Amino acid sequence: MTDHDQKGLTAVDAKSHAQELAFAPVAFYTAIALRDTGLLAAVEANGTNGADAAALGAQCGLSEYGALVLLDHGANLGLVHKEGDRFRIDHVGHFVLHDEMTRVNMDFTRDVFYQALPHLETSVRESRPVGLQTLGSWETVYEGLTHLPEPARKSWFRFDHYYSDRAFDALLPVVFERPVGTLLDVGGNTGRWALKCLAHDPDVRVAMMDLDDQLQVARANIEAAGYGDRVSYHPVDLLDPDQPFVAGADTLWMSQFLDCFSEPEIRSILERAARSMGPDAVLYIVELFPDRQAFRAARTSLDAISLYFTCVANGKSRMYHYDRFRRLVTDAGLTITRELDNVGVGHTVLCCQRRRE
Amino acid sequence: MTDHDQKGLTAVDAKSHAQELAFAPVAFYTAIALRDTGLLAAVEANGTNGADAAALGAQCGLSEYGALVLLDHGANLGLVHKEGDRFRIDHVGHFVLHDEMTRVNMDFTRDVFYQALPHLETSVRESRPVGLQTLGSWETVYEGLTHLPEPARKSWFRFDHYYSDRAFDALLPVVFERPVGTLLDVGGNTGRWALKCLAHDPDVRVAMMDLDDQLQVARANIEAAGYGDRVSYHPVDLLDPDQPFVAGADTLWMSQFLDCFSEPEIRSILERAARSMGPDAVLYIVELFPDRQAFRAARTSLDAISLYFTCVANGKSRMYHYDRFRRLVTDAGLTITRELDNVGVGHTVLCCQRRRE
Repeated sequence: MTDHDQKGLTAVDAKSHAQELAFAPVAFYTAIALRDTGLLAAVEANGTNGADAAALGAQCGLSEYGALVLLDHGANLGLVHKEGDRFRIDHVGHFVLHDEMTRVNMDFTRDVFYQALPHLETSVRESRPVGLQTLGSWETVYEGLTHLPEPARKSWFRFDHYYSDRAFDALLPVVFERPVGTLLDVGGNTGRWALKCLAHDPDVRVAMMDLDDQLQVARANIEAAGYGDRVSYHPVDLLDPDQPFVAGADTLWMSQFLDCFSEPEIRSILERAARSMGPDAVLYIVELFPDRQAFRAARTSLDAISLYFTCVANGKSRMYHYDRFRRLVTDAGLTITRELDNVGVGHTVLCCQRRRE
Repeated sequence: MTDHDQKGLTAVDAKSHAQELAFAPVAFYTAIALRDTGLLAAVEANGTNGADAAALGAQCGLSEYGALVLLDHGANLGLVHKEGDRFRIDHVGHFVLHDEMTRVNMDFTRDVFYQALPHLETSVRESRPVGLQTLGSWETVYEGLTHLPEPARKSWFRFDHYYSDRAFDALLPVVFERPVGTLLDVGGNTGRWALKCLAHDPDVRVAMMDLDDQLQVARANIEAAGYGDRVSYHPVDLLDPDQPFVAGADTLWMSQFLDCFSEPEIRSILERAARSMGPDAVLYIVELFPDRQAFRAARTSLDAISLYFTCVANGKSRMYHYDRFRRLVTDAGLTITRELDNVGVGHTVLCCQRRRE
């Protein structure tokens, strides 16, 4: 399933890719089983000499048959390398064992997404996240987040935090390279970014806009950290087009927030943000754009994650392509004054200002 | 997930392959949804000029959003090609639309295997097909075959017949290149091969060994075709080591039969077959060996199908590698006198005779 957007793909290669696609779920669970039975770690521990399936199985309490059938398929997938009867660790296996991003993505697919995927087609037909019923009976995943069954809940939050934490640490110096008086945190959720800012700059003030439920959690977290006197809370349904934005902030912040909305909703949110902004105010939009990734696999991953929004989260949003997202920003009366790619884990920051008429 | 058994894979490539593996089930269902919503056919129908997601969605009764989110991921998978906002059919998409093998494999994975796969790890740990419970409560899939729920039943039989029919047609001239008096069809199932032989050669006699249930079905089919007087039926549990084989046949036949058994069971079956054989009798063993395939994707597919045996069928058998299977044959007192690769759809025929002491 790689490298086939080149024009030069032969018919044999294409037919091969089609068969790999046809058995792709098997590849996924082979990797999971090799990881979680301990076979992959056993292969690695046996070093460059390798070991045969009987020995590796014995080391993991598995039959020779069971070890061999997994390892043989693992050899096709680049997880292990087979020479004669002996297996050694291969490059992809190293990442499946040791790379946190791989683990976080894999567990997310397994625990949050796998059972829902058979409902992808219906989700697209009905424009609603039909796959969400495999986790609980909510309209959108956001209503159910804190009630998700395990292990979906743990894998969802690890996935979410993996991507946002890395971005936040890289973004602090970007936002604070000019003085920030008041930062309006739009969709601030449980306050993770606000807390980073409050700790980073002892003078900054934060205004948070979000649903009341989220703000209660944010308030508790912020007060527990001792920053309560520098924060104001503005409960609002951001999807209500009649709700204006809090005015007076010199810095506005929307991080991995707009990808939760449809294009018309994004347009409405950005128009209201623009109207609230003074001539020098800067809006930072942080997103993961598939078409702004340095690596092809990152683009593929993000386009795959989009279908999680389609099938599980809300049925109407996605990881937007920059090419299309840019039009929403400019149509809302904003000008993109600066763009930074590859911040965090492939995040892009768009610095926007109100367009002067 | 391709081309990574080369030693030269870079860390970046390996990390990319790991992410593709992590989202492999999404790739699978994206292909299914593009196929079954009609989007892929619509892309193809729009020809080389291509069409944008809004137009393609409208042609299939889907929203622009839904069409675009599927097509964007499809572009990563080689199903469609994106240029600006327009999509054209790409090579892999052609095979997903038109290639029967791709369709048969894809539907088998979806309908028979997908829901069972989360039980792969437990199946290996417990040496039984734990995933079978997602289809029905049987010990092995063979007990349940005619009672499988739809669409699993239809997809199972289409898969089975796709591979065996092509092999049978290619194998008739191989077997009948020398005169056949009596053919012993071991594990003859519902009589598909026996019927081919009886129609091909008006003088050949067939003896069938299988479980009584299967033979009843075979007898009905054979008598309906008017060949009843040239066939004898020998109900037997082939796994019972005390059951001898029918003696006197000059030709013995085991096609895609031994892959349903464990190595010790295969050894026992072959030993009894050898003991029943005269010095000139020939045993034809037909199997799909992953390590005898001309194309890498065929090997990968067969190693993936092995895990269906592990997780769904019986928990103990597989598509054996030739390298290991050969030892079972020779240990049973047989000599492989001739090997033919690439018969049918990647089948190998092993012609075996009793070893002279």
